[in-house]
Amino acid sequence: MSTAVNDRCSIARSLEILGQKWSLLIVREALFGRTRFSEFRERLGVAPDVLTDRLARLVDAGILDRRSYREDGARERQEYVLTEAGQCLRPVLAALAEWGDEHRPTGYGPAVRYVETATGKPVHVAFLSSDGRPVPDTEISAVRGPGAL
Amino acid sequence: MSTAVNDRCSIARSLEILGQKWSLLIVREALFGRTRFSEFRERLGVAPDVLTDRLARLVDAGILDRRSYREDGARERQEYVLTEAGQCLRPVLAALAEWGDEHRPTGYGPAVRYVETATGKPVHVAFLSSDGRPVPDTEISAVRGPGAL
Repeated sequence: MSTAVNDRCSIARSLEILGQKWSLLIVREALFGRTRFSEFRERLGVAPDVLTDRLARLVDAGILDRRSYREDGARERQEYVLTEAGQCLRPVLAALAEWGDEHRPTGYGPAVRYVETATGKPVHVAFLSSDGRPVPDTEISAVRGPGAL
Repeated sequence: MSTAVNDRCSIARSLEILGQKWSLLIVREALFGRTRFSEFRERLGVAPDVLTDRLARLVDAGILDRRSYREDGARERQEYVLTEAGQCLRPVLAALAEWGDEHRPTGYGPAVRYVETATGKPVHVAFLSSDGRPVPDTEISAVRGPGAL
Protein backbone atom coordinates (compact mmCIF):
# COMPACT_ATOMS: atom_id res chain seq x y z
CA MET A 1 0.00 0.00 0.00
CA SER A 2 2.61 2.51 -1.11
CA THR A 3 0.79 4.62 -3.68
CA ALA A 4 0.06 8.23 -2.89
CA VAL A 5 -3.59 7.68 -3.75
CA ASN A 6 -3.91 5.24 -0.88
CA ASP A 7 -1.84 7.35 1.53
CA ARG A 8 -4.45 10.05 1.19
CA CYS A 9 -7.46 7.74 1.38
CA SER A 10 -9.13 7.64 4.76
CA ILE A 11 -10.54 4.18 4.06
CA ALA A 12 -7.06 2.84 3.37
CA ARG A 13 -5.64 4.56 6.44
CA SER A 14 -8.42 3.15 8.60
CA LEU A 15 -7.91 -0.34 7.23
CA GLU A 16 -4.18 -0.20 8.03
CA ILE A 17 -5.29 -0.51 11.65
CA LEU A 18 -8.70 -2.10 11.41
CA GLY A 19 -8.26 -4.32 8.34
CA GLN A 20 -7.22 -7.33 10.35
CA LYS A 21 -10.31 -9.23 11.32
CA TRP A 22 -9.29 -9.52 14.98
CA SER A 23 -8.86 -5.79 15.43
CA LEU A 24 -12.50 -4.96 14.76
CA LEU A 25 -13.67 -7.97 16.76
CA ILE A 26 -11.64 -6.73 19.74
CA VAL A 27 -13.35 -3.34 19.34
CA ARG A 28 -16.70 -5.16 19.18
CA GLU A 29 -15.96 -6.84 22.52
CA ALA A 30 -14.70 -3.56 24.01
CA LEU A 31 -17.98 -1.88 23.01
CA PHE A 32 -19.72 -4.64 25.00
CA GLY A 33 -17.70 -3.45 28.02
CA ARG A 34 -14.99 -6.10 28.02
CA THR A 35 -11.59 -4.78 29.10
CA ARG A 36 -9.36 -7.72 30.05
CA PHE A 37 -6.94 -9.84 28.07
CA SER A 38 -8.57 -13.02 29.40
CA GLU A 39 -12.04 -11.81 28.41
CA PHE A 40 -10.97 -10.98 24.85
CA ARG A 41 -9.15 -14.30 24.55
CA GLU A 42 -12.01 -16.44 25.84
CA ARG A 43 -14.66 -14.61 23.89
CA LEU A 44 -12.82 -14.53 20.57
CA GLY A 45 -10.86 -17.78 20.77
CA VAL A 46 -7.80 -15.92 19.47
CA ALA A 47 -4.22 -17.11 20.03
CA PRO A 48 -2.54 -15.17 22.87
CA ASP A 49 0.38 -13.92 20.75
CA VAL A 50 -2.00 -12.60 18.08
CA LEU A 51 -4.16 -10.93 20.73
CA THR A 52 -1.10 -9.30 22.34
CA ASP A 53 -0.05 -7.92 18.97
CA ARG A 54 -3.51 -6.62 18.05
CA LEU A 55 -4.05 -4.98 21.46
CA ALA A 56 -0.67 -3.22 21.16
CA ARG A 57 -1.56 -1.92 17.70
CA LEU A 58 -4.94 -0.66 18.89
CA VAL A 59 -3.20 1.13 21.79
CA ASP A 60 -0.60 2.66 19.43
CA ALA A 61 -3.38 3.83 17.11
CA GLY A 62 -5.19 5.59 19.95
CA ILE A 63 -8.22 3.30 19.83
CA LEU A 64 -7.64 1.59 23.18
CA ASP A 65 -6.13 2.99 26.37
CA ARG A 66 -3.99 0.60 28.44
CA ARG A 67 -4.58 1.04 32.17
CA SER A 68 -3.24 -0.73 35.23
CA TYR A 69 -5.49 -2.25 37.85
CA ARG A 70 -4.92 -4.46 40.85
CA GLU A 71 -7.45 -6.67 42.57
CA ASP A 72 -7.05 -7.49 46.29
CA GLY A 73 -4.09 -9.76 46.81
CA ALA A 74 -3.34 -10.09 43.09
CA ARG A 75 -0.50 -8.65 41.06
CA GLU A 76 -1.00 -5.58 38.93
CA ARG A 77 -2.69 -6.27 35.60
CA GLN A 78 -3.53 -4.29 32.46
CA GLU A 79 -6.93 -3.50 31.14
CA TYR A 80 -7.91 -2.01 27.80
CA VAL A 81 -10.53 0.71 27.57
CA LEU A 82 -11.86 2.36 24.41
CA THR A 83 -10.71 5.92 23.84
CA GLU A 84 -13.06 8.48 22.33
CA ALA A 85 -11.73 7.53 18.87
CA GLY A 86 -12.51 3.90 19.69
CA GLN A 87 -16.03 4.74 20.82
CA CYS A 88 -16.53 6.47 17.47
CA LEU A 89 -16.16 3.12 15.68
CA ARG A 90 -19.70 2.15 16.68
CA PRO A 91 -21.24 3.20 13.32
CA VAL A 92 -18.53 1.27 11.43
CA LEU A 93 -19.33 -1.92 13.35
CA ALA A 94 -23.08 -1.39 13.10
CA ALA A 95 -22.84 -0.82 9.33
CA LEU A 96 -20.80 -4.04 8.95
CA ALA A 97 -23.26 -5.96 11.12
CA GLU A 98 -26.26 -4.71 9.17
CA TRP A 99 -24.64 -5.65 5.89
CA GLY A 100 -23.72 -9.10 7.20
CA ASP A 101 -27.19 -9.77 8.59
CA GLU A 102 -28.71 -8.85 5.24
CA HIS A 103 -26.18 -10.34 2.84
CA ARG A 104 -24.42 -13.12 4.77
CA PRO A 105 -27.19 -14.43 7.04
CA THR A 106 -26.62 -17.48 9.25
CA GLY A 107 -30.25 -18.51 9.47
CA TYR A 108 -30.26 -17.86 13.22
CA GLY A 109 -31.05 -14.16 12.94
CA PRO A 110 -28.82 -11.34 14.13
CA ALA A 111 -26.57 -12.16 17.11
CA VAL A 112 -26.55 -8.50 18.08
CA ARG A 113 -29.07 -5.77 17.59
CA TYR A 114 -28.37 -2.06 17.94
CA VAL A 115 -31.10 -0.26 19.86
CA GLU A 116 -31.84 3.15 21.28
CA THR A 117 -30.82 2.82 24.93
CA ALA A 118 -33.78 4.81 26.24
CA THR A 119 -36.51 2.91 24.40
CA GLY A 120 -34.94 -0.42 23.39
CA LYS A 121 -36.20 0.17 19.86
CA PRO A 122 -34.01 -0.84 16.91
CA VAL A 123 -31.85 1.69 15.11
CA HIS A 124 -30.10 1.36 11.80
CA VAL A 125 -27.21 3.06 10.03
CA ALA A 126 -28.13 5.51 7.30
CA PHE A 127 -26.96 8.59 5.46
CA LEU A 128 -28.17 11.90 6.85
CA SER A 129 -28.14 15.25 5.04
CA SER A 130 -26.54 18.25 6.76
CA ASP A 131 -30.01 19.33 7.91
CA GLY A 132 -30.73 15.93 9.46
CA ARG A 133 -32.87 14.37 6.74
CA PRO A 134 -32.35 10.66 5.86
CA VAL A 135 -31.03 10.23 2.30
CA PRO A 136 -31.38 6.83 0.51
CA ASP A 137 -28.09 5.12 -0.38
CA THR A 138 -29.02 5.29 -4.05
CA GLU A 139 -29.07 9.11 -3.90
CA ILE A 140 -25.48 9.36 -2.61
CA SER A 141 -22.40 10.09 -4.72
CA ALA A 142 -18.72 10.04 -3.82
CA VAL A 143 -16.85 13.12 -5.08
CA ARG A 144 -13.23 14.24 -4.89
CA GLY A 145 -12.39 16.17 -1.72
CA PRO A 146 -9.59 18.66 -0.99
CA GLY A 147 -7.14 15.85 -0.16
CA ALA A 148 -7.55 14.09 -3.52
CA LEU A 149 -4.56 14.01 -5.84
CA MET B 1 -12.10 -18.00 13.73
CA SER B 2 -13.67 -21.29 14.68
CA THR B 3 -15.73 -20.46 17.74
CA ALA B 4 -19.49 -20.65 17.51
CA VAL B 5 -19.76 -17.12 18.86
CA ASN B 6 -17.95 -15.81 15.81
CA ASP B 7 -19.80 -18.09 13.38
CA ARG B 8 -22.99 -16.36 14.42
CA CYS B 9 -21.58 -12.83 14.42
CA SER B 10 -22.42 -10.83 11.35
CA ILE B 11 -19.37 -8.62 11.86
CA ALA B 12 -17.09 -11.66 11.84
CA ARG B 13 -18.85 -13.13 8.81
CA SER B 14 -18.54 -9.84 6.95
CA LEU B 15 -14.86 -9.55 7.81
CA GLU B 16 -14.18 -13.05 6.47
CA ILE B 17 -14.72 -11.50 3.06
CA LEU B 18 -14.01 -7.83 3.62
CA GLY B 19 -11.32 -8.01 6.31
CA GLN B 20 -8.48 -7.93 3.82
CA LYS B 21 -7.60 -4.35 3.13
CA TRP B 22 -7.62 -4.83 -0.65
CA SER B 23 -11.15 -6.20 -0.73
CA LEU B 24 -12.76 -3.03 0.59
CA LEU B 25 -10.48 -0.86 -1.55
CA ILE B 26 -11.61 -2.80 -4.63
CA VAL B 27 -15.22 -2.13 -3.58
CA ARG B 28 -14.31 1.56 -3.13
CA GLU B 29 -13.03 1.68 -6.72
CA ALA B 30 -16.07 -0.22 -7.98
CA LEU B 31 -18.34 2.34 -6.31
CA PHE B 32 -16.45 4.97 -8.32
CA GLY B 33 -17.54 3.07 -11.44
CA ARG B 34 -14.31 1.21 -12.19
CA THR B 35 -14.89 -2.26 -13.59
CA ARG B 36 -11.68 -3.50 -15.23
CA PHE B 37 -8.74 -5.46 -13.91
CA SER B 38 -6.31 -2.90 -15.34
CA GLU B 39 -8.18 -0.02 -13.68
CA PHE B 40 -8.16 -1.70 -10.26
CA ARG B 41 -4.48 -2.57 -10.64
CA GLU B 42 -3.35 0.90 -11.69
CA ARG B 43 -5.48 2.71 -9.18
CA LEU B 44 -4.58 0.54 -6.20
CA GLY B 45 -1.01 -0.43 -7.07
CA VAL B 46 -1.81 -4.00 -6.03
CA ALA B 47 0.13 -7.04 -7.27
CA PRO B 48 -1.75 -8.84 -10.09
CA ASP B 49 -1.86 -12.21 -8.31
CA VAL B 50 -3.32 -10.61 -5.18
CA LEU B 51 -5.86 -8.68 -7.25
CA THR B 52 -6.90 -11.86 -9.11
CA ASP B 53 -7.43 -13.63 -5.79
CA ARG B 54 -9.41 -10.80 -4.21
CA LEU B 55 -11.63 -10.32 -7.27
CA ALA B 56 -12.42 -14.05 -7.29
CA ARG B 57 -13.35 -13.96 -3.59
CA LEU B 58 -15.59 -10.95 -4.11
CA VAL B 59 -17.31 -12.75 -7.02
CA ASP B 60 -17.73 -15.93 -4.92
CA ALA B 61 -19.21 -13.87 -2.09
CA GLY B 62 -21.78 -12.29 -4.40
CA ILE B 63 -20.34 -8.77 -4.08
CA LEU B 64 -19.07 -8.48 -7.66
CA ASP B 65 -20.52 -9.93 -10.86
CA ARG B 66 -18.02 -11.09 -13.50
CA ARG B 67 -19.15 -10.20 -17.01
CA SER B 68 -17.60 -10.62 -20.42
CA TYR B 69 -17.12 -7.76 -22.82
CA ARG B 70 -15.32 -7.34 -26.13
CA GLU B 71 -14.11 -4.13 -27.69
CA ASP B 72 -13.82 -3.84 -31.48
CA GLY B 73 -10.97 -5.99 -32.72
CA ALA B 74 -9.89 -7.05 -29.22
CA ARG B 75 -10.24 -10.40 -27.51
CA GLU B 76 -12.96 -11.01 -24.97
CA ARG B 77 -12.21 -9.61 -21.51
CA GLN B 78 -13.83 -9.71 -18.08
CA GLU B 79 -15.24 -6.82 -16.17
CA TYR B 80 -16.42 -6.69 -12.57
CA VAL B 81 -19.64 -4.95 -11.62
CA LEU B 82 -21.07 -4.51 -8.13
CA THR B 83 -24.09 -6.65 -7.32
CA GLU B 84 -26.89 -5.27 -5.19
CA ALA B 85 -25.12 -6.68 -2.11
CA GLY B 86 -21.97 -4.85 -3.21
CA GLN B 87 -23.84 -1.59 -3.68
CA CYS B 88 -25.11 -1.97 -0.12
CA LEU B 89 -21.54 -1.62 1.19
CA ARG B 90 -21.67 2.14 0.63
CA PRO B 91 -22.54 2.94 4.29
CA VAL B 92 -19.72 0.65 5.51
CA LEU B 93 -17.17 2.51 3.37
CA ALA B 94 -18.58 5.91 4.25
CA ALA B 95 -18.49 5.09 7.98
CA LEU B 96 -14.85 3.97 7.67
CA ALA B 97 -13.97 7.10 5.68
CA GLU B 98 -15.61 9.40 8.20
CA TRP B 99 -13.81 7.72 11.06
CA GLY B 100 -10.47 7.92 9.25
CA ASP B 101 -10.91 11.59 8.33
CA GLU B 102 -11.67 12.40 11.95
CA HIS B 103 -9.24 10.12 13.74
CA ARG B 104 -6.45 9.41 11.25
CA PRO B 105 -6.24 12.68 9.31
CA THR B 106 -3.50 13.22 6.70
CA GLY B 107 -3.47 16.99 6.92
CA TYR B 108 -4.68 17.29 3.31
CA GLY B 109 -8.38 17.01 4.13
CA PRO B 110 -10.68 14.22 2.96
CA ALA B 111 -9.77 12.66 -0.40
CA VAL B 112 -13.41 11.75 -0.92
CA ARG B 113 -16.59 13.35 0.27
CA TYR B 114 -20.01 11.72 0.24
CA VAL B 115 -22.71 14.06 -1.03
CA GLU B 116 -26.37 14.02 -1.90
CA THR B 117 -26.36 13.56 -5.68
CA ALA B 118 -29.22 15.99 -6.28
CA THR B 119 -27.80 18.91 -4.27
CA GLY B 120 -24.06 18.19 -3.94
CA LYS B 121 -24.41 18.82 -0.21
CA PRO B 122 -22.44 16.65 2.25
CA VAL B 123 -24.04 13.69 3.99
CA HIS B 124 -22.78 11.71 6.93
CA VAL B 125 -23.41 8.30 8.42
CA ALA B 126 -25.56 8.19 11.53
CA PHE B 127 -27.94 6.03 13.51
CA LEU B 128 -31.62 6.45 12.73
CA SER B 129 -34.53 5.31 14.88
CA SER B 130 -37.26 3.17 13.31
CA ASP B 131 -39.35 6.33 12.84
CA GLY B 132 -36.51 8.11 11.01
CA ARG B 133 -35.14 10.26 13.83
CA PRO B 134 -31.33 10.66 14.18
CA VAL B 135 -30.04 9.11 17.43
CA PRO B 136 -26.61 10.16 18.83
CA ASP B 137 -24.00 7.37 19.00
CA THR B 138 -23.84 7.79 22.78
CA GLU B 139 -27.52 6.81 23.08
CA ILE B 140 -27.05 3.48 21.30
CA SER B 141 -26.66 0.09 22.97
CA ALA B 142 -25.82 -3.31 21.52
CA VAL B 143 -28.09 -6.07 22.83
CA ARG B 144 -28.28 -9.82 22.22
CA GLY B 145 -30.39 -10.76 19.23
CA PRO B 146 -32.18 -14.04 18.36
CA GLY B 147 -28.98 -15.50 16.83
CA ALA B 148 -26.89 -15.04 20.00
CA LEU B 149 -25.70 -18.16 21.80
